[in-house]
Amino acid sequence: LLVLIPGHASSQEHPSLTITKEGVVNIQRELGELPLFDVSLEQVKVQVDAEISSGIDVPIPKDYSGGYTHERHKLNYLTMQKAGLLYQVLDDEKYAIYVRDMLMQYADMYPTLSLHPKERSYARGKLFWQCLNDANWLVYTSQAYDCIYEWLSKKQRQDLEINLFRPFADFLSTGNPKFFNRIHNHSTWGNAAVGMIGLVMDDDELVQKALYGLPDDNIEPNAKDNDGGFIKTENGKSGFLANLDEPFSPDGYYTEGPYYQRYAMYPFLIFAQSLHNARPELGIFEFKDSVLLKSVNTLLQLTDKNGDFFALNDAQKGMSYQTSSLVTAVDLSYYYGGKDTSLLHIAEQQGKVILSDAGMEVAKGVNQNTSRPFKRKSMQFSDGANGKQGGLSVLRSKDESLTLVFKYTAQGLSHGHYDKLSYSLYEQGNEVVQDYGMVRYVNIEQKGGGNYLKENNTWAKQTIAHNTLVKDETSHFQGTYEIGSKYHSNLYFFDASNSKVQIISAVESNAYTDTQMHRTMAMIEEETYGKPFVFDILRVNSQKPAKYDLPLHYLGQPIQFGFDYQATATLEPLGTANGYQHIFLEGKGQFRKKSNATFSWMHQNHFYTLTTIVSQNEQFLLGRLGANDPQYNLRRDPVIIHRKEKTKDALFVSIMEPHGSYSPVTEMAKNAKSNIEHIEIIYNNKDYIGVQIKGKNWLDKIFILANTENDKSKKHRLTINGKLYEWVGPYTYQNKK
Amino acid sequence: LLVLIPGHASSQEHPSLTITKEGVVNIQRELGELPLFDVSLEQVKVQVDAEISSGIDVPIPKDYSGGYTHERHKLNYLTMQKAGLLYQVLDDEKYAIYVRDMLMQYADMYPTLSLHPKERSYARGKLFWQCLNDANWLVYTSQAYDCIYEWLSKKQRQDLEINLFRPFADFLSTGNPKFFNRIHNHSTWGNAAVGMIGLVMDDDELVQKALYGLPDDNIEPNAKDNDGGFIKTENGKSGFLANLDEPFSPDGYYTEGPYYQRYAMYPFLIFAQSLHNARPELGIFEFKDSVLLKSVNTLLQLTDKNGDFFALNDAQKGMSYQTSSLVTAVDLSYYYGGKDTSLLHIAEQQGKVILSDAGMEVAKGVNQNTSRPFKRKSMQFSDGANGKQGGLSVLRSKDESLTLVFKYTAQGLSHGHYDKLSYSLYEQGNEVVQDYGMVRYVNIEQKGGGNYLKENNTWAKQTIAHNTLVKDETSHFQGTYEIGSKYHSNLYFFDASNSKVQIISAVESNAYTDTQMHRTMAMIEEETYGKPFVFDILRVNSQKPAKYDLPLHYLGQPIQFGFDYQATATLEPLGTANGYQHIFLEGKGQFRKKSNATFSWMHQNHFYTLTTIVSQNEQFLLGRLGANDPQYNLRRDPVIIHRKEKTKDALFVSIMEPHGSYSPVTEMAKNAKSNIEHIEIIYNNKDYIGVQIKGKNWLDKIFILANTENDKSKKHRLTINGKLYEWVGPYTYQNKK
Ligand SMILES: [Ca+2]
Ligand SMILES: [Ca+2]
Ligand SMILES: [Ca+2]
Ligand SMILES: [Mg+2]
Ligand SMILES: [Mg+2]
Ligand SMILES: [Mg+2]
Ligand SMILES: [Mg+2]
Repeated sequence: LLVLIPGHASSQEHPSLTITKEGVVNIQRELGELPLFDVSLEQVKVQVDAEISSGIDVPIPKDYSGGYTHERHKLNYLTMQKAGLLYQVLDDEKYAIYVRDMLMQYADMYPTLSLHPKERSYARGKLFWQCLNDANWLVYTSQAYDCIYEWLSKKQRQDLEINLFRPFADFLSTGNPKFFNRIHNHSTWGNAAVGMIGLVMDDDELVQKALYGLPDDNIEPNAKDNDGGFIKTENGKSGFLANLDEPFSPDGYYTEGPYYQRYAMYPFLIFAQSLHNARPELGIFEFKDSVLLKSVNTLLQLTDKNGDFFALNDAQKGMSYQTSSLVTAVDLSYYYGGKDTSLLHIAEQQGKVILSDAGMEVAKGVNQNTSRPFKRKSMQFSDGANGKQGGLSVLRSKDESLTLVFKYTAQGLSHGHYDKLSYSLYEQGNEVVQDYGMVRYVNIEQKGGGNYLKENNTWAKQTIAHNTLVKDETSHFQGTYEIGSKYHSNLYFFDASNSKVQIISAVESNAYTDTQMHRTMAMIEEETYGKPFVFDILRVNSQKPAKYDLPLHYLGQPIQFGFDYQATATLEPLGTANGYQHIFLEGKGQFRKKSNATFSWMHQNHFYTLTTIVSQNEQFLLGRLGANDPQYNLRRDPVIIHRKEKTKDALFVSIMEPHGSYSPVTEMAKNAKSNIEHIEIIYNNKDYIGVQIKGKNWLDKIFILANTENDKSKKHRLTINGKLYEWVGPYTYQNKK
Repeated sequence: LLVLIPGHASSQEHPSLTITKEGVVNIQRELGELPLFDVSLEQVKVQVDAEISSGIDVPIPKDYSGGYTHERHKLNYLTMQKAGLLYQVLDDEKYAIYVRDMLMQYADMYPTLSLHPKERSYARGKLFWQCLNDANWLVYTSQAYDCIYEWLSKKQRQDLEINLFRPFADFLSTGNPKFFNRIHNHSTWGNAAVGMIGLVMDDDELVQKALYGLPDDNIEPNAKDNDGGFIKTENGKSGFLANLDEPFSPDGYYTEGPYYQRYAMYPFLIFAQSLHNARPELGIFEFKDSVLLKSVNTLLQLTDKNGDFFALNDAQKGMSYQTSSLVTAVDLSYYYGGKDTSLLHIAEQQGKVILSDAGMEVAKGVNQNTSRPFKRKSMQFSDGANGKQGGLSVLRSKDESLTLVFKYTAQGLSHGHYDKLSYSLYEQGNEVVQDYGMVRYVNIEQKGGGNYLKENNTWAKQTIAHNTLVKDETSHFQGTYEIGSKYHSNLYFFDASNSKVQIISAVESNAYTDTQMHRTMAMIEEETYGKPFVFDILRVNSQKPAKYDLPLHYLGQPIQFGFDYQATATLEPLGTANGYQHIFLEGKGQFRKKSNATFSWMHQNHFYTLTTIVSQNEQFLLGRLGANDPQYNLRRDPVIIHRKEKTKDALFVSIMEPHGSYSPVTEMAKNAKSNIEHIEIIYNNKDYIGVQIKGKNWLDKIFILANTENDKSKKHRLTINGKLYEWVGPYTYQNKK
């Protein structure tokens, strides 16, 4: 464990947060030699010079995000941080003057400000409508102050610290314990802000608060924030180190998911780097088995083939490792994490580096041509502070052409969705079977001020919005955060050691009362089929008969339905609550006997087929998003739902198969039809499930899953239809006898 | 006019169609020197070698397109043509052997074949379900035969000609006059096929038929094809020269539109090239003021910024100048059309050249680095054989960032749509306001055998599927081809000389009885607005009150509605016929007074706003495609319809404005809101319309259109609200006084 040296009192030199005196000397020596660094420097210079020539504006705070004063203060802190670095690197006083003059205007205004006039936040800021943005401001501005600290007179520093920085830090910490003293990305920003300005001012009280939180915060145990998340966690810890300890699993998975991780990474890393430079004795990068650097690799692994983050929990699609906080993350991870040359490959794609010692080393590595391809792999990531709260698995085919993301995590704090054992599927960089993401148009003011829209709760978080089981048209944990937060799914087994059959299996026992869900998904490669297919067994055991819905949120245009259905002439909502109220029913197929139902579609010029085992009276419902959405907050995406009614124990078995492509230029369709001919359950009891898979080129296989024995070394013997099958481990995939 | 030298009887050398003996010598000298040629050669070699090693298969014809025998025969002719060229260029006998052996199998089978078993076509083929594909086969195979002609023994040639080629050519011509003897892209293929094999065999009777058609065909005057198109045209001409004369306007616009033009280009050019080589005295490339070479440039101009053809009439989206027939077109156009070096730029993007003298010259040009950017321009293309049947206009902003395509053509033969005065809008390479295109999944067998689907008639061709006026819920010309074919719209004026205000104006008087539609669209650039906007005036004069609908087929996600509307809880079709049966009504806004209605949406991370003048009792209908489409043949695209009821004369005035962009990576929205503040009709009588346009940055303009005087030199004086406006020409756009 870390021990902070009490009463630390160095006469610290500046700059010492993200750039050091020594670093500046090194950088200046290399200027003009490293194209990636020079380009990055030039970009920053162009931006800052443009701002300098358009003049300083520090308006009275007034607007929500998207509005002028919000965007202006945001631009101000971003520009000050850059100007500070330019002053150091280029040694040109005009940048220091710009930062100083702007800071002085803030120091004049700040003491006059009461709370921001907009009242929506659980923790209103002063410059912005929420403390979170005030903390953003201070994280960036601390760096600017650090860069011009020695250039300022003592008098100027006193003025800034007394009128601006110290009260600013106090407001964010003791002034706003609900914001500052919790385990949440908001607090991470708050902690970093207070800690970083504390480091610049050499104010150890602030640094202590930043690292360990407020000793006494008087927050009610059940208080919640705007997103409906709890303020307090059970163990009651807070501060930066607790925030680092708690939401990151030992595998570096951040419990809110990659979209929020990339947002949180910046304060984590930038404050860590500052601590590394200014308080090296803390050994921050080694904390919790180097979890911070590990988490950067995890975040990069949680991207599709063109670098977009998987849309887990609340997440806006299209966010990618091109985002600026990932430039910082990649550069620092390279510099402090052993110079992994595959990171250089990503830095090249980012096309820029940060202006610091770390960025310079990256530029040097790129210049020396040492980059090697960044490889995405099949991986399993545990969730929870100690890695014991379920997890996330990613299965990838060769060349990353097919990617399956399988989620059996904990709730994921207030940004979590009710999506136990759900999955999404990507081909190349494209979603094929989607997680909807969030319902929010970030920074598009016309759409509810750019904030979360109510359909985020009524649709995006609901279970029916995900590719997993819904029981009786209700969401997991009754769609209740308090309940969901108590539980997590459990890994049954994960095995990616055999590239021909990569497999993940997990169990969820709490999403519905007296109901166990056990889902196993395998990515199976049959060489003659060109592309691998995904085999999916979802086994449900319940105490009482119920209605089960298993949606498939495919993207694209239906091509062929291998079953009869009635299209609906008039579209009505499929239900009234829990997300069902947003789905229009476009058609319904009812099955008369046990058979296979198939459904083919085309997306981005690729063909896909779902083959599912259906029984008498089961239904396929064809749905379209958009009901009860008068504001068009939702996309009009399609869904197909497999429904089993009045069923106690249910078994959903299907194959999801990418199998071809189309070119609108050559107008040729390749492998437009499925390779799978028939799947059938040939064994099913409490111990084993056996499924026969027949397909083109005389494929005749059997897949057997052991339902209750996940020991990988355990030997099994099972006779099915008079034939003996023997294997080792929780499953076998072999030729049918 | 052309005169064919009667009784032409050279002892012709071979090859002489697409490659010449002299060309072969030149090519062989340059091998290894021209990367683009070498790459192209290698690609072809790899394909052919693979086919040679997998062996010859000439199956008994059985399937529709997408099925095995269809695709196999298609692959066969494509491979033979390539193998023939490889034999010439590489002088390797194995390619000649491959072609010979395959041809011999065809010669064995052909005499045994009766009509293809599939009965859908108006002109069934023998190898394929329609003569069209048989003609494709012969166009390609003639080239292969030409390449190995001299290598074969006389006996072998006799065998092939007696059993295969001559009966094949007779079947396509005298055997199928409805297919061969008309003005249609089908016939162009037929003519080229017969003519090319005639050239190889030096069979002048066939060449004559190809050029001038069958003298007597016994076709009933009102006979139609599968698409509902007439077989006979009025003047009764036929043959290749008539097909070249008739559907191409003097500007090189092909009346069926670019999608079919790119398909027809191949037989036009390849037969023309063959004639150029084998019958140079014809001067085929000079025919009709060099219309054939001109048409290549026209076709290239009818592409969006990434080379996709505009989706006019029946057209599959995504077809682009990357298609192989355009490689031929670009190479031949370069070689025979004065070596326009901007064509080299396209050849570079195509990444390959044809294996011929022309391809080699292109490769040489690219190698010498003489390519310059291909510039798309604002242009006007006349329609009709003599250029007097309306036309098509394309308005483009600087850098081609915004493209408006405005259609005032003739019907466009059987592939035409009922879309008088309709338009589509592109930003960069993306459609923003779309023409639906066609309802057909070409070569995707599961979708109706890859053929036109019935929704092509019930939706895609109907007027409501286009961005133009619908009167009383009926399509132009009652959606009747016979009527539509008699008429065309008329140009009022076109002026792209002023890059700040580019403008097109046209009149349609026959689409509806006793109704005149006059539409004027201007692309206006106001520098401070960043992007230009489109100003649209549609003036309708009718004898009787009617219901008018003006749809906007926008693509993307609604962002903001600047008017009140009721969303529909249950979706019902908007109508029962003429395309309306396919639109679900999602919502309705009814206006209480004269005002502006605005609608903003986002597409591909760009923002757009429509600002429209509305009056009391007018409606906006929010619609979604998909009603009465049980097979999901249609995309679920949105539409917004401006409706005026019980109106005799109507004036639709609006501004379509691209004005911003969004990045999901930086999460920044730029210019997310419209620049236009208010538009108002301030003058309106039979002679003039005056519209005031107010916008950000104190913009206050007036646009005045002269309704009946299109003389560009005519002076106008008009007093509006006590202010005198003076200008020259049919319109003025100036500061409001
Ligand atoms: Ca992607
Ligand atoms: Ca046709
Ligand atoms: Ca395009
Ligand atoms: Mg993505
Ligand atoms: Mg989700
Ligand atoms: Mg396109
Ligand atoms: Mg159309």
